[in-house]
Amino acid sequence: MSVDEERRSTRVKRLPREVRERQILDAAVRVFSQYGYHNASMDEISEVAGVSKPMIYAYLGHKEDLFAACIRREATMLMEAIAAGVTTEQAPDMQLWHGLRAFFQFVGEQKQSWRVLHRQATSQGGPFSEELLAMRSRAINLVDALLVRSATTRGEAPAKSTEALAAALVGASESLADWWLDHPEVSDKTVASWLMNLVWMGFGDLVTGTVWTPTPE
Amino acid sequence: MSVDEERRSTRVKRLPREVRERQILDAAVRVFSQYGYHNASMDEISEVAGVSKPMIYAYLGHKEDLFAACIRREATMLMEAIAAGVTTEQAPDMQLWHGLRAFFQFVGEQKQSWRVLHRQATSQGGPFSEELLAMRSRAINLVDALLVRSATTRGEAPAKSTEALAAALVGASESLADWWLDHPEVSDKTVASWLMNLVWMGFGDLVTGTVWTPTPE
Repeated sequence: MSVDEERRSTRVKRLPREVRERQILDAAVRVFSQYGYHNASMDEISEVAGVSKPMIYAYLGHKEDLFAACIRREATMLMEAIAAGVTTEQAPDMQLWHGLRAFFQFVGEQKQSWRVLHRQATSQGGPFSEELLAMRSRAINLVDALLVRSATTRGEAPAKSTEALAAALVGASESLADWWLDHPEVSDKTVASWLMNLVWMGFGDLVTGTVWTPTPE
Repeated sequence: MSVDEERRSTRVKRLPREVRERQILDAAVRVFSQYGYHNASMDEISEVAGVSKPMIYAYLGHKEDLFAACIRREATMLMEAIAAGVTTEQAPDMQLWHGLRAFFQFVGEQKQSWRVLHRQATSQGGPFSEELLAMRSRAINLVDALLVRSATTRGEAPAKSTEALAAALVGASESLADWWLDHPEVSDKTVASWLMNLVWMGFGDLVTGTVWTPTPE
């Protein structure tokens, strides 16, 4: 075999592995989201993927590793979808709006991903919650940076509370997405605009200085 | 033994059981929040409680039952603390304010409870997440009822989004409380006021009709 032929053959061998891994992960996300982690069987995943069990074990490991790989992939896809919707040239409110739109679009189109990511991983706990915590941290940092930019572009010092409010918004988005799974009659744009209206006025007040204060009792 | 004596003796026997159960649960919350569910040992709980292991098993069952009992008790205490802070005679914004104050006060004073309730139970998953889901539902219903009352007292029809926004607020509160555990230098009143300012302006707009709309691109 010439060097060229060998390279080609290696490339040919590599491609199937990536394709197979994707097939396996697609199947695993489907099966995990349908049956839950405990009731999902490797036999079912093998059948849906059209890939033998020994090959799944060789490529992605046993059930726990496979589930962790699903969470990692789906979390990355979600973060990429949000990043793709937002550019720093947009006004801060539009950045948040496009970020929320992208988030709810992803959840709406990838309901199985969200079920695995959020409901299944949360209810399984253990090692999986670390993958989730890492994703949440990235999301919180993203929103925090947006709020800081929003203040500094207006020539103001960012409030001390930006990170805390970013954490609040991420929690609100997760919780609302979960509510939405049980109310599919509401459109993704509507859900996004509800949350936008809820928080933007509040974020805006960070900047304009309008504050709510308790009435004296 | 006279009937009176028998009654007295039954009462005397009953009291220690309640006291012992409380001792066991107090100890269990401490040990679970310190070591996490998996690493917590019944030996340690027995030692901290000053109650023998056979008695713990007889009263509250094995580790899983004991953990579930902790979540139930702490969740009930949290909901009671919030309910105690709020009366329906207060204006809607003050009801929300007092509710948030009570929530963050509870989390601040009962950090171990919150760790068990939220972090431990979430990362353990399984049967425990059902206890948590039940608590979240109660909290969402409480906020939803508040938003509906807030609209109707102004003579308006409640928006369709009240339940969704209630879910968003509960998620925001949980997430912010979690952030706060890592930032104990911030006071409970400050954290509560950040969240109040974030959401009340948004809730207010539900009623006044001011809305954020995307700028045309």
